[in-house]
Amino acid sequence: MQQVPSTLDNPIAISLGDPAGIGPEVIAKCWDHRADFNLPPFVAIGDGRALAAVWDGPIEVVDDPSEADAAFDYALPLLQLSAAESDIPGHPSVAGAHCSLDSLELAVGLARSGSASAVVTGPVAKEQLYAIGFQHPGQTEFVAERCGISPSNVVMMLAGPTLRTVPVTTHLPLRDVPDALSVQLIESRGRAALRGLQRNFGIANPRLAVSGLNPHAGEGGSLGRAEIEIIEPAIAALTAEGWHVTGPHPADTMFHDRARAKYDVALCMYHDQALIPIKALHFEEAVNVTLGLPIVRTAPDHGTAFDIAGQDRADPRPMAAAIRMAAQCAMIRTEAP
Amino acid sequence: MQQVPSTLDNPIAISLGDPAGIGPEVIAKCWDHRADFNLPPFVAIGDGRALAAVWDGPIEVVDDPSEADAAFDYALPLLQLSAAESDIPGHPSVAGAHCSLDSLELAVGLARSGSASAVVTGPVAKEQLYAIGFQHPGQTEFVAERCGISPSNVVMMLAGPTLRTVPVTTHLPLRDVPDALSVQLIESRGRAALRGLQRNFGIANPRLAVSGLNPHAGEGGSLGRAEIEIIEPAIAALTAEGWHVTGPHPADTMFHDRARAKYDVALCMYHDQALIPIKALHFEEAVNVTLGLPIVRTAPDHGTAFDIAGQDRADPRPMAAAIRMAAQCAMIRTEAP
Repeated sequence: MQQVPSTLDNPIAISLGDPAGIGPEVIAKCWDHRADFNLPPFVAIGDGRALAAVWDGPIEVVDDPSEADAAFDYALPLLQLSAAESDIPGHPSVAGAHCSLDSLELAVGLARSGSASAVVTGPVAKEQLYAIGFQHPGQTEFVAERCGISPSNVVMMLAGPTLRTVPVTTHLPLRDVPDALSVQLIESRGRAALRGLQRNFGIANPRLAVSGLNPHAGEGGSLGRAEIEIIEPAIAALTAEGWHVTGPHPADTMFHDRARAKYDVALCMYHDQALIPIKALHFEEAVNVTLGLPIVRTAPDHGTAFDIAGQDRADPRPMAAAIRMAAQCAMIRTEAP
Repeated sequence: MQQVPSTLDNPIAISLGDPAGIGPEVIAKCWDHRADFNLPPFVAIGDGRALAAVWDGPIEVVDDPSEADAAFDYALPLLQLSAAESDIPGHPSVAGAHCSLDSLELAVGLARSGSASAVVTGPVAKEQLYAIGFQHPGQTEFVAERCGISPSNVVMMLAGPTLRTVPVTTHLPLRDVPDALSVQLIESRGRAALRGLQRNFGIANPRLAVSGLNPHAGEGGSLGRAEIEIIEPAIAALTAEGWHVTGPHPADTMFHDRARAKYDVALCMYHDQALIPIKALHFEEAVNVTLGLPIVRTAPDHGTAFDIAGQDRADPRPMAAAIRMAAQCAMIRTEAP
């Protein structure tokens, strides 16, 4: 397990996510196991009833993140947001969606103002958010907008103990992937990933490995020309800027032990190419990190899991990994010159 | 390491593959480490000069596979095929291509006649094979034809200690994958995989997990409709035949430990979807098994690696895994009623 610095000035702000999902449960379990999981002080943000519905541990309602540090030893610090009604685990509602959005907004605001060291976001239900007028594809884009950053300039990175991947395209039908790729898009995603590794992970000269789109990376053009026409020029452009970039690599031979040791982050062309290897290797520890923001934001790489909410079955390890990684990134940013 | 039965009546026939590739080296190393690797008697087929060029161990030229068993204790048994000229490791030639094709043909013939228990094929160079008029996409199709089976009825399975995958489509540009999929193709590949698990692996009621094509398996149609229109009907048809089939599953959450425990083989829609997880998890032990043949045929899942041939750097573990799996499958077939 990674060592976590204990010297952050302020706690990590964690939005509970949808109150009817597994967010409250895994956050409460993280407090229960804060010593085993090696977690820094954090403050939960949301409706305390969602915690009480699934957990009988001590909660300390605080008015300000600065009070969280002292409370953290004996209770889970909570910034209480009242929802119109209380949700039943597993049964999402419009009121719950409002509450999850309010807690996300507050968490981001606290990080922007400096009262929180970083933001970790609990899982939300997109369908319910859309029903209340939420117009972003996901929390990442909302956080970007609240930080004054264009969503096209932030990237999602999946990070585990021995692998980090960044998908160039995300939630697109596979059929639409080839035409969605461009030299400019691969270049900008690659640049954002490299800068993010410098800024959030303290890697001075990060190494980027770029995957091919086609089997065997196109095999010299006989299995597709995206590598020659789009990916290679993007690699050349990044290399010309002085970055350490290799590829296009055949995707199937990029992710074994010895291959992974040769790069700090893999830039993948589509969702499953990036997510299959990280989840095959690091299912319980894969963290979603948003790069390109003025604040540190991480999230566990799972959804609301309404089907198991309220049954004490949710695994808190991904949330714990997200909290640890947020703390590490925050510390690296603090220490940067 | 898997236990291998030592009671096969006949040796495993191994074609050396391209004499200038790493085939001869890894086969020789397998004989060196036959005890550690727990290997049954095997006979190499090809030009002995290719072995001598990279290895100074003992070779016993035999006239018939039946002599291999006695020789195997003190020397690597070899069925000698003469090539017009001797290749230099790393420098493939037309003569070498002829030799690799002859050795493949002989190995298949020996297995068909019953003098060999199974065939393991060393890696060949397709470019050189095409230059001498070879018209099959690869060795698999050649073996199928020599066995009187239509290549469309055999499937490639990648098998490691904790995962087996079968790609529905293989060497196609990613752009061409969606239109290449059909209910009929998925159904026939799934059926061949299930029957192959019964016949070659002795699994009476095999469980097949089918992946989606799109991120999140299409998320109910919002990220693509292949799951609804093509994959689900194929699953329904196989289920109606009495097979145990689940899916379509989001590909990114199919390959972690707990998910893998729920099925015996994963049917994947395209090359990298099947090969990324198997190679990420089992790079040194991934074996290519051809299902649907009257004989047992396996191969290590790597190529000729001309760039490292003759340098004593090739890893023999994939070849050893292929030999062990061939022996296991042969024994299961022998024992079947």
